[in-house]
Formats: sequence, C-alpha cells, structure tokens
Amino acid sequence: MTQTAAIIGGGVIGGGWAARFLLNGWDVRVFDLDPDAEAKLAPVLAQARRALPSLTDVALPPEGCLSFHTDLAEAVSGVTWIQESVPERLEIKHKVLAEVQAACPDDAVIGSSTSGFKPSELQDGAARPGQIMVCHPFNPVYLMPLIEVVPSPHTDPALVEKAEAILRSLGHFPLRVRKEIDAHIADRFLEAVWREALWLVKDGVATTEEIDEAIRMGFGIRWAQMGLFDTYRTAGGEAGMRHFMAQFGPALKWPWTRLMDVPEFTDDLVELIAGQSDAQSGHMTIPEMLKARDDNLVAMMRALKANDWGAGAVMNAHEAQLREGTVLGAHADALDDVTQPILTVRRAVPLDWTDYNGHMNEARYLQAFGDASDRFMALIGCDADYIATGGSYFTAETHIRHVDEVHAGTLIEVRTRVLAGADKKLHLFHEMFDGTRLLATGEHFLLHVSLETRRPSEPAPAIVHALARIAQAHAGLPVPEGAGRAVGQRP
Amino acid sequence: MTQTAAIIGGGVIGGGWAARFLLNGWDVRVFDLDPDAEAKLAPVLAQARRALPSLTDVALPPEGCLSFHTDLAEAVSGVTWIQESVPERLEIKHKVLAEVQAACPDDAVIGSSTSGFKPSELQDGAARPGQIMVCHPFNPVYLMPLIEVVPSPHTDPALVEKAEAILRSLGHFPLRVRKEIDAHIADRFLEAVWREALWLVKDGVATTEEIDEAIRMGFGIRWAQMGLFDTYRTAGGEAGMRHFMAQFGPALKWPWTRLMDVPEFTDDLVELIAGQSDAQSGHMTIPEMLKARDDNLVAMMRALKANDWGAGAVMNAHEAQLREGTVLGAHADALDDVTQPILTVRRAVPLDWTDYNGHMNEARYLQAFGDASDRFMALIGCDADYIATGGSYFTAETHIRHVDEVHAGTLIEVRTRVLAGADKKLHLFHEMFDGTRLLATGEHFLLHVSLETRRPSEPAPAIVHALARIAQAHAGLPVPEGAGRAVGQRP
Repeated sequence: MTQTAAIIGGGVIGGGWAARFLLNGWDVRVFDLDPDAEAKLAPVLAQARRALPSLTDVALPPEGCLSFHTDLAEAVSGVTWIQESVPERLEIKHKVLAEVQAACPDDAVIGSSTSGFKPSELQDGAARPGQIMVCHPFNPVYLMPLIEVVPSPHTDPALVEKAEAILRSLGHFPLRVRKEIDAHIADRFLEAVWREALWLVKDGVATTEEIDEAIRMGFGIRWAQMGLFDTYRTAGGEAGMRHFMAQFGPALKWPWTRLMDVPEFTDDLVELIAGQSDAQSGHMTIPEMLKARDDNLVAMMRALKANDWGAGAVMNAHEAQLREGTVLGAHADALDDVTQPILTVRRAVPLDWTDYNGHMNEARYLQAFGDASDRFMALIGCDADYIATGGSYFTAETHIRHVDEVHAGTLIEVRTRVLAGADKKLHLFHEMFDGTRLLATGEHFLLHVSLETRRPSEPAPAIVHALARIAQAHAGLPVPEGAGRAVGQRP
Repeated sequence: MTQTAAIIGGGVIGGGWAARFLLNGWDVRVFDLDPDAEAKLAPVLAQARRALPSLTDVALPPEGCLSFHTDLAEAVSGVTWIQESVPERLEIKHKVLAEVQAACPDDAVIGSSTSGFKPSELQDGAARPGQIMVCHPFNPVYLMPLIEVVPSPHTDPALVEKAEAILRSLGHFPLRVRKEIDAHIADRFLEAVWREALWLVKDGVATTEEIDEAIRMGFGIRWAQMGLFDTYRTAGGEAGMRHFMAQFGPALKWPWTRLMDVPEFTDDLVELIAGQSDAQSGHMTIPEMLKARDDNLVAMMRALKANDWGAGAVMNAHEAQLREGTVLGAHADALDDVTQPILTVRRAVPLDWTDYNGHMNEARYLQAFGDASDRFMALIGCDADYIATGGSYFTAETHIRHVDEVHAGTLIEVRTRVLAGADKKLHLFHEMFDGTRLLATGEHFLLHVSLETRRPSEPAPAIVHALARIAQAHAGLPVPEGAGRAVGQRP
C-alpha cells in the first residue's frame, strides 16, 4: 500500500525530503504558503531524478504522487510521516508543530529537520510530545545517507524505531543520537571547522580555495570512508588507538586552533569570503556545480558500494530491500514461468556508466550482461552459498551487438534465454531493452569450473536439474536474431 | 636520468614517502638507525605496490633502487630530495638538519614532514636556511594527493617551485601555504574536530563509532569532492556565499562547540576511547583495515578521476605526464613502426576492476579493449579535437574470448591490429597480454558516424589515409587465432 509523507516547508531541505520519499514510491504532500512552491521544488526534483536512481543496481519503485497544499490540516491528514523543515526559529516551529498535531494521526512520525534545537525544546508545550523527534538530514537530502535521529526522553521509543525502519527503506542511514545536545553531532564538527576557516581567511593565512583544497585533497577523502577514530586507529599501527593517543595526545596542549574566539562577523569579512569564493568557483554556475557535486557523490558512493563499505553498505542493504519478493530477489522460487525469456536485470543506467555525452559506455553493456548472467546463475542455484562450496560458471566467450544507444537514467531491462545448457556448458542469449526498444544483444558461453583447480567440472545435480528445466522450456522459442553470428557476419 | 631521494626516518610517514618516490621510478635511500628498518618498511611498501599502480590508467615507470643506510652523509650525498620524517621534537630536527646540510648538495630540496613546526623554526641556526621548507604529507603518503608546502620568508623561492614540480611528477597536489602558521592548514581543522570529538565521547553524547558514522555518512563524503566553502556555496543556491553567510552566519554566536576547553587527557579518557574503538573495529585486524582503506581510497579517487574533478583531476594530470613521449601519449607521430600490432594499452589491473577474489571482472576486459580502440582511433587522428568537429567511431559489435585469468596489480598490455579499415568501417583485433601470456582477444567492428545524425558517415581524408597505411601494413600479418569466429565455434 502506498504511504504518504507530508513535507512542511518546501525549501532546499524540504524539497530534498520530498524527492527522496517520492522517488521511493511514497505519495508526497508539500505544504508551503509560497505561491511559487511548485516552481521552487522543480529543480531539486529534477536533480534528484537525475541522481538518485543511480545509487542502486536495481530499479526504484514507480514514483508516488506529488501534490501541493496551502492548508496544513489537509496536508497532514492521514499521513504516515510529517517532516518539518521551516526556518530555524523556535516560535515558528512551535506554531507549526501545534497545527500539525491538531490534524495529523496520533501514530504518525513527526520529524524536524532542525540543525540546532534539541527535541525537548521542540516538544515544549506540544499536545503529544511523544510524537516529536529530530530527524536531521544533510544536503543533498536525496543522496546523503545520514539522518541524525534524536529523541528526547519523552519521545515514544516505538515511534523512533518505526521512523528508523522507514528511513532505512528510503536508503538512509539513521544515526540514533543517545543524548540530546545543541546541534546534535555532525554540525558541532562543522561549526568547529567553519570557525577556524573564518579565522584563517580573516588573518590572510589561506583563501577559501586553498582551504577547500586542504580538505578535499587530504582528510576529506579519508573521512568519506572511515571517520576520525578509525582513521587514527589505522595510523596507530598494530597498537591501534592507545598508541595513537600516547603519541599525539600531548599535541592537544599546543595552542593551534583559534576556536576559543569567534571572529567578528563584519561586512568586510563577508565580502572577503564571498569575493574569494567567486574567484574560486565563479566560473561555474550553481546548477553546473550541483551537477558536478551529484556526479561526484554518486560515483564515490558507488565505489564504496562495490566494496560494501560505509555509505556503500547502506546502499546495498537498501537494494536488498528493493529486490525482495521479485524475480530479482535472493530466492529462486520466484521463478514460476520459464516459458519466456527471464527478467534478469531491471535498473536505471547510472551516471557513472556513461561518457561525457551521457551515453552508456560500451564496457557497461557487458557489465549489465554480466550481471544478467550472475542473476541467471543464482536462479538455477549457482548463488553465493553454492560458489562458496567451490563451483561456479566462468565466461569463456562473449558476442555483443550494439543495436541502439541509451542515456543515463533510462530504465533498462535484460531478458535472458538459454540457447543450450547441459553438462559443464551454459550458452546464454541476453537482450537489453528500453521498453520495447532493443538496445543490444549479448551471447555468452560459460563453463562450470572448479574454483580450486580452475578447470572445467560438473555442476551439482540440483543445478543440472534446474538448468535442464529452463533449457527445455526455452528450446521451443524461436532462435533470436543475431545468435550464432561472428563479428561482421550479416544475417 | 634516474633521480635519488633520501628519506630520513623510516616510520609510517617516511615509509610512505619512500614508496611514493620508488614506485615513480626514483632511487631511494632510507636513513634509519633502527636495525629493523628494512623489515619496518616492508609492509608499507607492500601496501603501496598493491594500491598506487591502481591510480592511473597507464603503467608507472619501472621501480627505482631501494637502499638502507646508517650513515647520514652517505645517504644524502648527491641526492635531489631529502625528506625529513623524524620525531616531532625541535632539537632532534635541528640536529638532523645540520647533519644533512653538512653532506647534501646545495641545490637539493630539504622537505620536513612536520605537522606542527613552522619552517622558520626548522631553519633556526641552519647553515643554509634557504634550502629548508615544510612538505607536510598525509597518511597514506603513497595514495593521498595533498602535500602542504610551507616556505618561510627565507626559503629560496626557486627551490620551492622545483619542489612543487617534483611533487606533481609524483602525482601529489602541492598546496603552497602563503603564511607560515603552527600546524599549517589541514591539521588545524583536524585538531578542532579531534577536541570536539573527545568532549562528545567524554560526556557520553556519542561513542567513537557513532562519531565516525556521523562523519562518513555525511560531510565526509561531501568534503571528498568539494571542501567547506564550495559545499556551502552550493547550499546557498543561486545567491551563493553571501546568501549562505547571511542565513547561517548568526548561528556562529550560538555556543555549540566546546572548543574553548581541552578535556583533561586522563588514563580514564584514553581507556574510554580505546575501548570504544576496539568495540567499533576490533573485529578487523589493522592489516585488514589498511587493505579496506586503500581499496576505498583507490575506488573513490578513481571515481573522481572519471569525472576529472579534485583529486581525480590531479591523477589525470599525473597520467598525462606519464604518457608523454610514448606511443601511449597525446601525439600520433610517435607511431613509427606499423609493421607489427600496435601497443595501445599498458597499465596495471587496478583494484577496482576485480571481483572479491582479485580476478579482473569480465566487463573490465571490454573496458581495456575499449580503451585500446580509443587509443587506436587517436593514433589515426580520431582524437578529442577531431571528435569535437562532429565525427567519431562507434562500436557496433564485439567478440571477446577469455583465454586466461589475471589478477589486480598485473601489468597488462594490449596490442592491436587492423583486420580491415576502409570507408566507414574499422575492424580491429586486440590481444591482451601479461608478458607473453595471452589473456584475452577482442574482435571489434566499428563504424564512423556523424555525431549529429548518429548515422554512418565518411571519416575525414587524413583519417582515411592514416588508417589505410596501417591496414596495408597489417594485411601482411597472419590472421590471428580466433578471428572471425562465432560464440562456441571451434577452430
């Protein structure tokens, strides 16, 4: 059943939440009194549609319905989730939360995007404090995994767990903050760095560009995959954290940072920083920068996904949820009908599979076909558990015909038929489609091998049996166009 | 001519420097009085040999010679670069620098890895202060791009430029720090974050693991590609930095961070943090963590490389240097001998091209062959400039025979011959080797197309001519084994 989220406040953060819910199949109601609310949301939604489907190697569910509302009670009526992203002023938040609670279901999650306030401050004077918690996101909300989930002692623990399960179903990483504190966790670090950066610019030690390079050429890359403590743990060598702290702890006594003071926020300082920022990045428009940012985030997160690490492991868990109960899922018993070619891949073409013109690179056709072969293998029982016992299929030969082009973001499907499958041999024919448009065919000859000897070997009887069933059913299909052909050979 | 670097102090940092120079073709002399110096360096070198060749899509030069020394004068005699990485105590650094200057060439770069001292402090009392500068690296030195280059007013500006050119030739990003200051730039931020993290752990607000997640699931990923200011610039929307500062500047007045105080560094605090770190990551050994870290850094930096952004743009610049003057370089006139198959790819199999067993994934064979086709196209004049005029070759068909397996780190070469090349048609046959061991063949049929109409079109006369020359020369070669064959067809 489709669930509904109400997004209160349609700025960059609210818009990011709206996109994240919508693209994960939720209906979304946006409450914003700005008559331009829809126009304001459009670019955020366009960015999200471009980038978010890239994060998983399986298609997202169909988009939900998006509607805009100027009646708050209407917007929150009957919804499962309310996300408050109004300006950071406590009296505004109190007023909005009171109106929300007057009309929303008692068991809905009310999350606040506040970056500074504690949940108990938000709950102050509320009709049902137990329903309110902080769910603090990071920009761009449609891509970043982290949500700081901060309950107060008065928040209903069951509702917090419900909220976290929903966030995980959106591909988020809910980080439960165990003790409420101003600015939660991450923004306390951001503030510390921001203050020191302002001093360095003000004192002429470094420009904004030099500071950005000092971050992204160094610890920024490290922190994208391990945080502070694991980075230092590895720096400590075998002795780990204790050694690191013994070595570097005393350095804390040195008066390096200027953080005891806040630089005065004068017009001169604003101009100095804004001017340096223009010199640094004024050659790019903001939309160009957002596109580059999303391309980079997607590509790096997909790199972590391949390693099943950090943000990438979160994406893999999300993907497993998306596959569940489909023929693309873990269990072969979803495979009822074998009279037709079998759906083995259903996914968007991700941003990092394309060239600078946005067309899918030739090697990625083979990657999709390779994924299709892997999925077919799993369907006949040659899955991770079987492979762990020492047998697998290796590709010996591949013939790809590129029939038509395809762009990033396109939903592609691969359908697979068995041309032959007996003994050690497996001869597959994949067809890749965009809807009914044929994009490419892949003909593949695989051999079952022993992973120990790396030589051909007989597969387990269960695999032989499962494969025979499909091979027999597919034997009745007409031979597909292009099968059995050499490079350059015409029909 | 091979250049020589002297590495003074063979710990993790010195070892990282040694590996970076050595794998970029420099001879390296390590000075370390520890009788276990060689054994101490071995794991760092093994890690670097595993990871560094992955960063570029062209092979690094052959490794230089590594030697170990207990005579400092011998170690620094005649060298181009001296890197000091001894413990962070000024009197030790002064003593070492004096001995170095007594024996090293006057025009050698003397870089110090100090993370805290200013160059003028290092120069105090030196025989030739102008030769000394800070070159502050980041762990792992063999992978991280950033080097903070900090001259004092007494450092010879010409020598600073020489140092930066050398660092760039090693694939580093030298960041010139314009005003010397304690801890340079990056470590001031690290200290600020470290202090706040200690408070959060001490006060029971968050564990080390929760802090690491707050970093790597959020701003860590952002900072790996844009730093602090560009991230905020994009968050400010069209109005950029001025808008962002107007909106968030006042928040600086809120007393979020605890950074005015340093937590007392008691045994209890050390135990608390070390214990939490064990709970977080004690299930992995340090070598396992280092392997995971390097896999992640390589994969993310390669993701940025594909986008030619940040650390990835640094890698592309390094790669262009490595290609220069070879047949793999920008200019086709390197192609003298066309009587034999042409070298089109020479590279290590990078870590992110392999499966969990370390074997190259099937799609990456096609990526290497696609790169070979691209390089061949450039050699006949179908290069980026030509493509910008609206013509290119598209692959229509591919036939790959997987002959043998190959592991990450292996140096592979692709040699390309023309089976046919006239009019719009280009029929190529690639062979991939590890030395003389054949790994795979790729037969490819390409068509010249108009990028506007996406339909076949005639190539420019210069391309027709260049291609005819090679096709004619290759016509005399025997037809390669496997050419013209369909999938499953035996010889």
